[in-house]
Amino acid sequence: MSAIYHQVSPQKLHDLTLDIFRHMGCTPEHARIAAGVLQSADLRGIDSHGVARLSGYVRLWNANRINAAAKPRLTYETETTGTLDGDGGLGLVNAAVAMDIAIEKAKKYGSGWIAIKNSNHFGIASAHATKALREDMIGMALTNASPLVSPTFSKERLLGTNPICYAIPAGEENPVVIDLATSAAANGKLEIAQRKNEPIPSGWLQDKEGKVSNNPADLKGGGSLLPLGSEKKTGSHKGYALSAFVDIFSGVLSGANYGPWVPPFVSFLPLADNMPGEGIGHFVGAMRVDGFRPVNDFKKNMDQWIRRFKASETIDGQDEVIIPGEPETRMEQDRLINGIPLIDPVFQDLRTLCNEFGMPFPELAHS
Amino acid sequence: MSAIYHQVSPQKLHDLTLDIFRHMGCTPEHARIAAGVLQSADLRGIDSHGVARLSGYVRLWNANRINAAAKPRLTYETETTGTLDGDGGLGLVNAAVAMDIAIEKAKKYGSGWIAIKNSNHFGIASAHATKALREDMIGMALTNASPLVSPTFSKERLLGTNPICYAIPAGEENPVVIDLATSAAANGKLEIAQRKNEPIPSGWLQDKEGKVSNNPADLKGGGSLLPLGSEKKTGSHKGYALSAFVDIFSGVLSGANYGPWVPPFVSFLPLADNMPGEGIGHFVGAMRVDGFRPVNDFKKNMDQWIRRFKASETIDGQDEVIIPGEPETRMEQDRLINGIPLIDPVFQDLRTLCNEFGMPFPELAHS
Repeated sequence: MSAIYHQVSPQKLHDLTLDIFRHMGCTPEHARIAAGVLQSADLRGIDSHGVARLSGYVRLWNANRINAAAKPRLTYETETTGTLDGDGGLGLVNAAVAMDIAIEKAKKYGSGWIAIKNSNHFGIASAHATKALREDMIGMALTNASPLVSPTFSKERLLGTNPICYAIPAGEENPVVIDLATSAAANGKLEIAQRKNEPIPSGWLQDKEGKVSNNPADLKGGGSLLPLGSEKKTGSHKGYALSAFVDIFSGVLSGANYGPWVPPFVSFLPLADNMPGEGIGHFVGAMRVDGFRPVNDFKKNMDQWIRRFKASETIDGQDEVIIPGEPETRMEQDRLINGIPLIDPVFQDLRTLCNEFGMPFPELAHS
Repeated sequence: MSAIYHQVSPQKLHDLTLDIFRHMGCTPEHARIAAGVLQSADLRGIDSHGVARLSGYVRLWNANRINAAAKPRLTYETETTGTLDGDGGLGLVNAAVAMDIAIEKAKKYGSGWIAIKNSNHFGIASAHATKALREDMIGMALTNASPLVSPTFSKERLLGTNPICYAIPAGEENPVVIDLATSAAANGKLEIAQRKNEPIPSGWLQDKEGKVSNNPADLKGGGSLLPLGSEKKTGSHKGYALSAFVDIFSGVLSGANYGPWVPPFVSFLPLADNMPGEGIGHFVGAMRVDGFRPVNDFKKNMDQWIRRFKASETIDGQDEVIIPGEPETRMEQDRLINGIPLIDPVFQDLRTLCNEFGMPFPELAHS
């Protein structure tokens, strides 16, 4: 099966995305922010989190589960901490607004940390955390997510793929951008295997009885993703604990939902009964590097760290050690020049959205 | 092979430990802190990090690699961040001193974060992070460590088992204490397998060529521990990235050593050439819960989180889902009542240390 791709212009795709958010009722500023976060995913090669999700956001908005005209506001605050009520709006916007507040606090006091409640899917974590880099700060972003992952020894889905992201500046080298789901494999990888009708490696999935599964269809049949570490003897309790950390910081600390009560990302699944909080939750933060040591000393050492790891002797058959964030940075450099390849179903989705909103479907080709 | 155990009194063991630190030249205050951190490990069942390490600290002090009379001091500071120069002293003390500073900053400004350089092994991370709990704060502790772990695709040891610890208060339930090495298995587990002459599971270790190994002896033969995730297809790049985060926060941000330059924990291994920093590094922090929402609301939700996970349906053959920190809390409750079981080699080590310092070897039996 070979997919049809459309090579589109990053700028044109961004402008169309912004227009669609405007038609949903977002302010110009919010539409710009939201389009920027999706663009970042499409440029960095995290295709599952770019415009591929745009129709999903529209469906949730259709179902009154996303408030496009939201007015996020701080409800609780100290000099360096606070909680943002996302007013049911786009997580893409709420996390970005919160990150700006965290950066302002860090400028004044060395660090800033904002929990966010009453929000929705926030896109790729690194789009938010990397905003700290231009200020010579370290950025952090966490979010909880629809329950798909079982804790060690359980057969219930109680956790999302709950990502952890840290963005760390370097000097002459590219920044280190750590952005990882705390499950052994991301849901997107299972979807690809299922489309191709291929078995998946042991360690990604268990079936509804909690037995090892190599069949990606078992996820929809009541199975669950496994935490990073895959099984107890290789440390799945650690992946579960990391996912718990993300859930508690994002959900419990903010007053959002947590665990099995986190709202699903798709409009056709119902909300849980007796939800204990508001919407889904995120947690973002920023710390000034020069709150610890002079920025140039830090950057010089970061460059040495990166170069030493790149120079590491590899095992046979492997070309190089990869620095966290390196493949995404390479992809971004490539796609800025050569355009973004959209698979046909996503391209057609955009056409459908334009029809629904009574917008002309624009020329998107990368020239 | 059945080991001989000595069931010792926690209080008597603590007092002996304190005396030995005093004989090394620690101030009464530092000796009390250091003995408390080792006691915490012995009570919580992390036997590899309790008095079993005391002779190791003495050997490093003999080799002039630990400065028992150190005067740790802040060298860099903002309202909520700073770097502590540990003056070559015990990590047990430096991390504890830094945590107290972080908590004071959090009281004033909502959060506090201290990087520590020029330090040594800091014991169990949770001994430091849990100090935040009594202030209704969330505590964090990280440290880098002697290189034993290879990044994905590498056959060189460039990272330590670099632990991540978060301590989170609850209400009626016990706090959630996440404390995990970012390798698939801790070094202690390999040592136990080697003593028993047993093979180890695939996923813990690679040999010096980077091939899967089930022989624990391969670690001493130039092999390396694997990051959490074990192999690329089950996410070892994530464990590697988490370990990198710990190394950078602990080593690069503080001005300590990092990567392959982190000083070894044993006195018989030489220091690396051209070390880029000072000693080993840690990172600790604290955030006030009420910097985000009222403490009682948070604790009520934490109790619900914990109870929902405990009530989770288990897979066949498993009794219950474990909350992070739960086994250690149970162990602590047991050992406070029933005493601490020391294996004979550790017990005899203590006798030897007393002889060396010209101290009488005290009665330790738990009565």
